[in-house]
Amino acid sequence: MTRFVCRDCGLDFDVNVPRWRCDCGGLLDLDFTPHLDPDRLAGRPATLWRYREALPVPDGAELTLGEGFTPMLPVEIGGREVLVKQEQLFPTGSYKDRGAAVMMAMAAHIGVDRVVEDSSGNAGCAVSAFAAKAGIRCRIFVPADNSPGKLGQIELYGADLVPVPGSREDTASACMAAASDCYYASHVYNPYFFHGTKTFAYEVAEQLGWKAPDAVVLPAGNGTLLLGAHIGFTELLGLGLIDRMPKLVAVQSANCAPLCAAFEAGAREVSQVATAPTLAEGIAIGLPMRGEQMLEAVRETGGTCLAVSEEAVLAAFRDMGRKGFCIEPTSAAVVAGAAEYVRTADADEVVVTVFTGHGLKVGDKLHKLAGGV
Amino acid sequence: MTRFVCRDCGLDFDVNVPRWRCDCGGLLDLDFTPHLDPDRLAGRPATLWRYREALPVPDGAELTLGEGFTPMLPVEIGGREVLVKQEQLFPTGSYKDRGAAVMMAMAAHIGVDRVVEDSSGNAGCAVSAFAAKAGIRCRIFVPADNSPGKLGQIELYGADLVPVPGSREDTASACMAAASDCYYASHVYNPYFFHGTKTFAYEVAEQLGWKAPDAVVLPAGNGTLLLGAHIGFTELLGLGLIDRMPKLVAVQSANCAPLCAAFEAGAREVSQVATAPTLAEGIAIGLPMRGEQMLEAVRETGGTCLAVSEEAVLAAFRDMGRKGFCIEPTSAAVVAGAAEYVRTADADEVVVTVFTGHGLKVGDKLHKLAGGV
Repeated sequence: MTRFVCRDCGLDFDVNVPRWRCDCGGLLDLDFTPHLDPDRLAGRPATLWRYREALPVPDGAELTLGEGFTPMLPVEIGGREVLVKQEQLFPTGSYKDRGAAVMMAMAAHIGVDRVVEDSSGNAGCAVSAFAAKAGIRCRIFVPADNSPGKLGQIELYGADLVPVPGSREDTASACMAAASDCYYASHVYNPYFFHGTKTFAYEVAEQLGWKAPDAVVLPAGNGTLLLGAHIGFTELLGLGLIDRMPKLVAVQSANCAPLCAAFEAGAREVSQVATAPTLAEGIAIGLPMRGEQMLEAVRETGGTCLAVSEEAVLAAFRDMGRKGFCIEPTSAAVVAGAAEYVRTADADEVVVTVFTGHGLKVGDKLHKLAGGV
Repeated sequence: MTRFVCRDCGLDFDVNVPRWRCDCGGLLDLDFTPHLDPDRLAGRPATLWRYREALPVPDGAELTLGEGFTPMLPVEIGGREVLVKQEQLFPTGSYKDRGAAVMMAMAAHIGVDRVVEDSSGNAGCAVSAFAAKAGIRCRIFVPADNSPGKLGQIELYGADLVPVPGSREDTASACMAAASDCYYASHVYNPYFFHGTKTFAYEVAEQLGWKAPDAVVLPAGNGTLLLGAHIGFTELLGLGLIDRMPKLVAVQSANCAPLCAAFEAGAREVSQVATAPTLAEGIAIGLPMRGEQMLEAVRETGGTCLAVSEEAVLAAFRDMGRKGFCIEPTSAAVVAGAAEYVRTADADEVVVTVFTGHGLKVGDKLHKLAGGV
């Protein structure tokens, strides 16, 4: 029986009753037992729902916009071949659809009719789209100084925007306050979101013929993909579908690298660090709520944390473009991290990385970033 | 043996020698015999290259960015269920990748190292991306008054932009002049492009369990998808994989509807008509070069031509957004056409239509179109 479990005090809760943290304030995980028989996958649609026995959503509650089973293509990065999951090809333009599909399917299943979320970026888009698909009313809290152009996609999906004056933290606080009587469809707190992003690992393993790669290079902002991948590969190992864990390599912008700082310092927890603006806006998180968990995932798998410069991000962005791939700058940071990783990796390592979001996400700024005149 | 064949004089030419029209000036088709054994498809990647025996490109010459086999989802349109191919999920954000992938694969195969094309829209993006992937140098001719923001994606793919003063026709003329000593990667003239877009029909048939739908509602600008679908369904019928042709329904903006005018007048050829600006920019073609062929495809299949108003386009755009789909306004015109078609269709008809391009294509205009304030 699937239960919410508090990471701090171990208390557990019914998953059919909306809840986003423990009474003690601790973060929630899911106690869930996946099943999967690869022989039953043939003929199933090429979406993440092909792994339905491994998803904590009852049969028949699936919610889909056609998301998942993204292509994994060989791309030359850092002078050698790296396998890149094309997560920019999700319906809303980013891998966040993995988390939103599963989370909103469960929300709809337990009868939720209104949700709140705080994200003006890819998570906000994904939650809005799947809320629209489910017929669930959605309010997205955003900093009041957000540029209107950035919000067009969320508006199109019919979500109500709630501008909040002040800092990004003020926006989060306002959303949490609203979450006291409304389902909090959070890409940070809600463990169903991570049980959506874990399908990334299932797809990688299936696309490699049920093998684990040697290393997986992933973005590290709030850790939605890093932690999802960790859950997924751990489950696959438990199911006997892979025979070892891949190293998880976390990439941050050097201008906002709290995880890297904690990793290097040998710290157990992540602390706030000084930050500067970065092209990789999507992973510019000064203090990730699940930082401790992210450090554990990296260390436990023998991975590492890498910080990349603004110059490397822009160069990777343009290099991928010249190879035919239109990706968002945040995604280019991960590519730059992969290039850095393979510089010292064994030549025979199978390295997987990810294009996280579509370049069209940056709107009219694409022209300038592309080097246009 | 595959050959170019002139539609006007019947002269045929070697496909391994670059050529974009007949010596007589006529348009070229391909004389090509497809093969396909559906039993051999299981386990092949979910891209358009799964139909490789039906594609006029030699084995081993495939060129891929992971394109094709887009999901087909039921969507409520015009008060009933219509099946919608999610072609906005292609790598460059539109179905034009079908044509560009096949055309550029063939170009690379015959040793082409430079191409030209005239399109500042989705075709230009698709050709640029696959040229980048193939390592082929690409020049895109665009009207000099194009807004720079619109060209960012093409620039990112590394194509050289050639601004041409004057009208859209002046741009085409300049490109044709350049094509005298350079491969013309045209989405209008090059028949390989249409043998890429034909894979739309193969996917629809496979996704329906090797059956034809009753009607397919498609955009009609230059007819790249309409004619591709016609080739595809005709081939499938010849292969015995479907047992009848679906009706092909062509949709235009009422503000630019030369095909509709010719269809209603019973004319054999399409003539220039008066036009006005439209939200459906991607199908705003005043005089389609393959108009006669488009009329034949519609008439031969018992289809029809529909013109949709600007109000219907905007309403369909927003309606799809509220259902979780971010599509470009041109695509919304097709949805409006599908809504119009099903109003008088039999209740048991299986109707297929298409989201042609991603809403993120319109950049910062998305905010205003979405109804944002």
